[in-house]
Amino acid sequence: MLEPNAWFTEIHSRDGSAFSLRVRAKLHEERTPYQTIAIYDTTDFGRLMVIDGCTMVSDRENFIYHEMMAHPALFTHAEPRRVAIIGGGDCGTLREVLKHPGVAEAVQIDIDERVTRLAERYFPDLTTANEDSRAQLLFDDGIAWVRAAPPGELDLIIVDSTDPVGPAEGLFSAAFYADCWRALGPGGLLVQQSESPLYHQRLLEEMRKAMQGAGFLDVKSLFFPQPIYPSGWWSAMLACKDGPIDGFREETIGARPFSTRYYNAEIHRAAFAIPEFLRRR
Amino acid sequence: MLEPNAWFTEIHSRDGSAFSLRVRAKLHEERTPYQTIAIYDTTDFGRLMVIDGCTMVSDRENFIYHEMMAHPALFTHAEPRRVAIIGGGDCGTLREVLKHPGVAEAVQIDIDERVTRLAERYFPDLTTANEDSRAQLLFDDGIAWVRAAPPGELDLIIVDSTDPVGPAEGLFSAAFYADCWRALGPGGLLVQQSESPLYHQRLLEEMRKAMQGAGFLDVKSLFFPQPIYPSGWWSAMLACKDGPIDGFREETIGARPFSTRYYNAEIHRAAFAIPEFLRRR
Repeated sequence: MLEPNAWFTEIHSRDGSAFSLRVRAKLHEERTPYQTIAIYDTTDFGRLMVIDGCTMVSDRENFIYHEMMAHPALFTHAEPRRVAIIGGGDCGTLREVLKHPGVAEAVQIDIDERVTRLAERYFPDLTTANEDSRAQLLFDDGIAWVRAAPPGELDLIIVDSTDPVGPAEGLFSAAFYADCWRALGPGGLLVQQSESPLYHQRLLEEMRKAMQGAGFLDVKSLFFPQPIYPSGWWSAMLACKDGPIDGFREETIGARPFSTRYYNAEIHRAAFAIPEFLRRR
Repeated sequence: MLEPNAWFTEIHSRDGSAFSLRVRAKLHEERTPYQTIAIYDTTDFGRLMVIDGCTMVSDRENFIYHEMMAHPALFTHAEPRRVAIIGGGDCGTLREVLKHPGVAEAVQIDIDERVTRLAERYFPDLTTANEDSRAQLLFDDGIAWVRAAPPGELDLIIVDSTDPVGPAEGLFSAAFYADCWRALGPGGLLVQQSESPLYHQRLLEEMRKAMQGAGFLDVKSLFFPQPIYPSGWWSAMLACKDGPIDGFREETIGARPFSTRYYNAEIHRAAFAIPEFLRRR
């Protein structure tokens, strides 16, 4: 039924589902040392970036994901000043982070420079903060970077990676979480995308255990829609180095000097609600 | 890429996206006086019912939709005893409604008896409450039924219909809402599925206006994931005949004498959080 030339399709083989976007043209495709990146022009979702056959971002819906990777953590931390983003090469998360005037520096460490260069070219809206003097863009191994980071230096680490296969696999390991724990200062937070609550329940459990095993004192899941990812429903895990995650700077959200499209104080609170089938596990 | 024989695909043409489930076999297909109903055996979602080419329910994920169509409204009403379900032929919503011991009668009015007969055959889990003495299954025009209902007789009307095209179109009209308003007693509630918050924002607005125009004093949206519906993100509208919707019987949820898989008190509260882009509209 779907004309192969007119649709990009991602098959989620393990879960027997597939998601397709109608495309006008493939604008670009290249094989980097790490992965294959393709850019499409879609009929209704604007530009679409695909990495190794998986949809990454589209113009239409990336705001939900990027806001939820940044703001819940930033408004939970009492005073986030130093932020590291591991992965995140499309720069959308960096842009959200730098909306916070209190952030003094944000380092983005993505292994593949081509993701960023293609984002600059095809997703200019996502890369508007790249020239911010507080931003530092590194193209390097995020795992090694965190391992080498001075202890206690960071307030927040955001792991904005692809799925836990291929180059991103090590970002879901206990050893990596232990390095994150060490690199964070008092009250430090780690947030990481944790796939679909419907499709990847085991991953959610394994991540939680690995983060707790690495010393994180509290670990909470947050949930949000993600129309172009498997099952349309996504999650992230927020972990605090040395204390409970209870409450957030709610009054600051109301007075935020920037706009959001999905996130607000109500959404912040709602995102932490745990569906009954996950609570029971 | 998708073998036509191995996948069922629903194209959301207006939004340039498509969703597919891998199937082992088509178990049944028939054309009724109202629509075409097909049943598939999928590889990972159990059985799947499709009406006029649109996915309706699968074994794997229907719990989210059916629970969210029933429990938020039932736990918002102070004492729901008489419930009408318009549409809902697969009987999944009826089953959730009759989990509430306080409900004295639940009438389901679906225009197409074949939906229910096929649900009984292929989705026996959904039809377990059909023999409940409090259940009444009518196969009739729901619009006419509500129009003829004695004034003030119902505590809750649940409109669990297909999309606002074809047989269900009249269920999204001001005239229908006025009949609902009249049929509801003091504190009466109306809840209706209202499509995707990402794809159908205009419908959400039109429904809200039409419900308010029909006399409903308060109208609130609730949001939940819906992995097999367009965009994977769904909504319902809850309207109160004569007062504000503020609060719910939270203590009763904790003590509920039945189990749920998605719904709980936290999810209830969270479902009403309004994304920033909808709040602004």
